Amino acid sequence: MRIGIIGTGRMGSGLGRRWAERGHEVFLGSRDPERARELAGTMGRGVRGGGIREAAAFGEAVLLATPWAGVRPSLEAAAPLDGKIVIDCTNPLSADYFSLEVGHTTSGAEEIARWAPGARVVKAFNTVYADVIGSSAVVGGEAATLFCCGDDVEAKRVALTLGEELGFDVIDAGPLRNARYLEPLAELCVQLAFAQGMGTRMALRLVRS
Amino acid sequence: MRIGIIGTGRMGSGLGRRWAERGHEVFLGSRDPERARELAGTMGRGVRGGGIREAAAFGEAVLLATPWAGVRPSLEAAAPLDGKIVIDCTNPLSADYFSLEVGHTTSGAEEIARWAPGARVVKAFNTVYADVIGSSAVVGGEAATLFCCGDDVEAKRVALTLGEELGFDVIDAGPLRNARYLEPLAELCVQLAFAQGMGTRMALRLVRS
Repeated sequence: MRIGIIGTGRMGSGLGRRWAERGHEVFLGSRDPERARELAGTMGRGVRGGGIREAAAFGEAVLLATPWAGVRPSLEAAAPLDGKIVIDCTNPLSADYFSLEVGHTTSGAEEIARWAPGARVVKAFNTVYADVIGSSAVVGGEAATLFCCGDDVEAKRVALTLGEELGFDVIDAGPLRNARYLEPLAELCVQLAFAQGMGTRMALRLVRS
Repeated sequence: MRIGIIGTGRMGSGLGRRWAERGHEVFLGSRDPERARELAGTMGRGVRGGGIREAAAFGEAVLLATPWAGVRPSLEAAAPLDGKIVIDCTNPLSADYFSLEVGHTTSGAEEIARWAPGARVVKAFNTVYADVIGSSAVVGGEAATLFCCGDDVEAKRVALTLGEELGFDVIDAGPLRNARYLEPLAELCVQLAFAQGMGTRMALRLVRS
């Protein structure tokens, strides 16, 4: 499928690279279109780059992969996103990463849904590290779990499928409001990786019997 | 060691039973002391029962395992808890379990620390199901992870050791304020188990390489 990616950091480029390897067409968008084009050039066939509006218009699904401060400006630059599947892999991190800017009575995902009314927002990939995407979702010999939540059934199905293709055990984690639990999960991982010194070659895995 | 347990539900009785099997002395406390005595009678040698104040006085560590509504009354009944290790395995669940009563700018654990000033509060076992404790922390052939957080180094060490004895992979998840991430993690598990129908034979496992 055609995937527009907004954000040229490790998550955007990491996911873009892997999806292109699997045959999807990827368009990387940035407020610095020349940077996006250069980066796309390193990411293999099937990846192009340019501006944010171009990426959003290109994609059947759009991955939002900017830092929290860049989210609202990016949505404005990408608009209109009515009817568009928006995969939100952002986290509403504070500037020092060690807390969340919103939570409990809302979530980053729900704020994004407010800022882009009409978009079909699904929360996915916000709890996984780029390192883990790079190792085909395998950490220490075990498959990492990808939690997705959203109110749009089809958008969620797309996100789950894109995650499964990358090697994740995928879990439907319910409606979009459950981002109120997935975003703290991401912050827990930040605390473990950086404050507790565990590094980013780590992931959560849901085990069941 | 001597462990006082406040709460006669599945977590209190499940943990009490397992710790008694490992040779710890357990005192189960309830606002219904007779019920606690009867339950203790079914839990094997090394387990006695009675009132909340008795349990708190008995324990070198006290496990708080009541529903959220019972937490503050239990702490009042248990007082004084100055200098006492209090292992908080509660979650600030709403009445229908499907949301949290507090979060983001505080946590259930931090509220407990305010209500029992001087207590050495450590958050532990709030993200694991009684079913998983009952299966020696093994789910689908894999060890579940126990996350513990707290500001008191010794209290945290005790909780981590008690968890390791039960078969968990134990992780020091940092200071007590990180309960702001462990409690949403528990609520995620509630959503998955009950709203998404996955049941309670499930757990999270941290994988690393």
